[in-house]
Amino acid sequence: MNKILITFDEAKKMAKSVMKRCNILGKISENKNIITRLYLSKEHKHVNIIVEKWMQKAGMKTWQDEVGNICGRYEGNTLNSSAILMASHLDTVKNAGKYDGILGVLSSIEIVHWFHKKNLRFNFAIEVIGFADEEGVRFGIPFLGSKGIIGEWIKDWLNIIDNKGISLKRAMEGFGLNPNFFNKASRAKDDFITYLELHIEQGPYLYLEKLPLAVVKGINGMYHLECKFIGESGHAGTVPMSCRKDVFFAFSEWLMFLRKNIQKEKYSKKIVSTIGKFNCFPNVTNVIPESIVFSLDLRSIDNIILDNFLEEILNYAKKISYFYKTTFIYKKKYHSFSVFFDEKLQEILLKTIKYFQKRTIEIYSGAGHDAISFAKRCPTGMIFIRCKKGISHNPNESVLDTDVALSLQVFIKFIININQNFL
Amino acid sequence: MNKILITFDEAKKMAKSVMKRCNILGKISENKNIITRLYLSKEHKHVNIIVEKWMQKAGMKTWQDEVGNICGRYEGNTLNSSAILMASHLDTVKNAGKYDGILGVLSSIEIVHWFHKKNLRFNFAIEVIGFADEEGVRFGIPFLGSKGIIGEWIKDWLNIIDNKGISLKRAMEGFGLNPNFFNKASRAKDDFITYLELHIEQGPYLYLEKLPLAVVKGINGMYHLECKFIGESGHAGTVPMSCRKDVFFAFSEWLMFLRKNIQKEKYSKKIVSTIGKFNCFPNVTNVIPESIVFSLDLRSIDNIILDNFLEEILNYAKKISYFYKTTFIYKKKYHSFSVFFDEKLQEILLKTIKYFQKRTIEIYSGAGHDAISFAKRCPTGMIFIRCKKGISHNPNESVLDTDVALSLQVFIKFIININQNFL
Repeated sequence: MNKILITFDEAKKMAKSVMKRCNILGKISENKNIITRLYLSKEHKHVNIIVEKWMQKAGMKTWQDEVGNICGRYEGNTLNSSAILMASHLDTVKNAGKYDGILGVLSSIEIVHWFHKKNLRFNFAIEVIGFADEEGVRFGIPFLGSKGIIGEWIKDWLNIIDNKGISLKRAMEGFGLNPNFFNKASRAKDDFITYLELHIEQGPYLYLEKLPLAVVKGINGMYHLECKFIGESGHAGTVPMSCRKDVFFAFSEWLMFLRKNIQKEKYSKKIVSTIGKFNCFPNVTNVIPESIVFSLDLRSIDNIILDNFLEEILNYAKKISYFYKTTFIYKKKYHSFSVFFDEKLQEILLKTIKYFQKRTIEIYSGAGHDAISFAKRCPTGMIFIRCKKGISHNPNESVLDTDVALSLQVFIKFIININQNFL
Repeated sequence: MNKILITFDEAKKMAKSVMKRCNILGKISENKNIITRLYLSKEHKHVNIIVEKWMQKAGMKTWQDEVGNICGRYEGNTLNSSAILMASHLDTVKNAGKYDGILGVLSSIEIVHWFHKKNLRFNFAIEVIGFADEEGVRFGIPFLGSKGIIGEWIKDWLNIIDNKGISLKRAMEGFGLNPNFFNKASRAKDDFITYLELHIEQGPYLYLEKLPLAVVKGINGMYHLECKFIGESGHAGTVPMSCRKDVFFAFSEWLMFLRKNIQKEKYSKKIVSTIGKFNCFPNVTNVIPESIVFSLDLRSIDNIILDNFLEEILNYAKKISYFYKTTFIYKKKYHSFSVFFDEKLQEILLKTIKYFQKRTIEIYSGAGHDAISFAKRCPTGMIFIRCKKGISHNPNESVLDTDVALSLQVFIKFIININQNFL
């Protein structure tokens, strides 16, 4: 079986098919001209139906699980053996690109399809999952899909409501799922011998280095806070500046501190900080705001650095809010420690990449990925593929056919190698 | 007739009735626990019906005009004579107080009611109007009510849409008005010999000086701009800080400049600046914003100072947006020059106030008022009544019964005097 290799021409044809399918899914959106596909929406249902057909065509047995993941299984030489799981997600942010998550799922199906056509079976099964939710846009919790698989759903989540007032429970029912059965999506620990994910980098490093692929060493730790400055509303024309509790002044001075702080040597290039969501109340032109509420997303591969930075900016927020007679409060909505992937698996993946691509770089992921869920369960590996200018979460997401072809070659060679060396 | 005077006890009873009616209207809102009553809403209709009944009870002939103002007329000694117009508005901001606008309308009705009960007629008629829209919350244009009366409506406005996508035209039809007839609300120039408005100060000066009433000398000029910083969206976790076009950094540094500038001697205490509305796009936690759009409300009694200040902060916005690789654009949505009221009328009003209240202060209005519309048509006068801590556009708006009683005495004495000296 060692001599069974995939040629670059073959891989290019497969890559074209993958890209075509990315385009097809890119058209399934709640808005006409932009891509937005949220968890448990009718677009989610639509995409699951299409992807399931592609899985079946690739020789897989398929099912939709109890949290809405679409799953396919390509049996090994013996029935019911443990599987290599190749997966990524099918949901998107609002006004998204076509490749974030989707590329990983469709490449995995294409790889299985190739094995199926060559009639190759292994000492393990291969499973592919298209996770139903990774972005967490609708209910504010990321990785709902992969957390379902690893059994980390919490019953309380069923009561969380989206911004239309629909609870997760009701949304599941509307989708045709029984919310009481979410635990049934959970898979046994020994179902999977390894987890593999291909994903666009979503950052600029591969693009700047002119390299197609890299092995991901780990994923940044992350805080997601909801912050609030509370002032006092009043008439925009009549309250003298000296009598105001100006939330925007407090916010701006705080943010200028954050900016200066992040440029300090101890933090520079080690942290990213984003205010992505920002709402003002009551949000009327001629009314001094009562309050502003905004998200703060902080990430670093270094957990200690991240904690120190957070503490400093929270302290400053309290200080500055006192100065402006405003009040600062915050809630920690999400926290994850940084994750480092299995070193042995990284070594094999790196060797495989170097077989096709002379040079590569060490890379950490600034974005969270479903791979986080699996890193604590089984040897987990991720490969990043270059995306143009590092642009992602944006309609201008762009990847090269030839890079996709290369990634297909890498994964196929890797699986064949593993089959020979693993068992 | 000179000897006909209203006693303070009588005035206090009337003030209680006014306050009671303010409470009644304060319950007519689109939300249960807060006061929000927008133009052409079903609450607007509801309020017009109630106020019309009160006008009729006060001895007035009533009608609703073609832009939705509720109007009452108390004839003079001869039919169809010109009128003193006493008016204010019945619409509110979102989450408003009970007195802004409403107090002026209900006090005026109470005053006419008093004349009616005493069977007093004058050499002029008295009209009371409850303007349908002054705040401009729904369609973004203030003074739609009084502008209808002075014939300054523009046909194009019919196409403006509210934030639910409903055009002014459709909203008028829904309310039962014929949008083609808006011009019929317009009144002839000689219909009114003078315009009087009682309004809460909405600022702290009377409260700080412990005085009930003041004559308003003029109203600040105002700019309302829509400003936008455009950056580049991207993934919150993956784009290094150095590669970002961070709209929030640009905004914050700009706002810190604005704050420093407004504290300079040449501007200090002469300008107020408010960011009341602020929206972020796409407004998702883990996406670097593509853009932020916000309102800038600037006011001053000095038109030149206002222009200079605006120019300086716009120049700085361009400069700072260049520094952060963002783009700054703006639209002037509204501009009014400052307005100075009729001096002779001020003198008489001042004398009348001083008859009841030993001391008073000179005051300019930071808020726009319907009086602006009439200042160019006929002698126009405004009286401010103290409101607690200057708080307005806020549920905590509060006025004293005794202050209201005093204002009723002032207006009644003023009208009786005018009747003797005017014609």
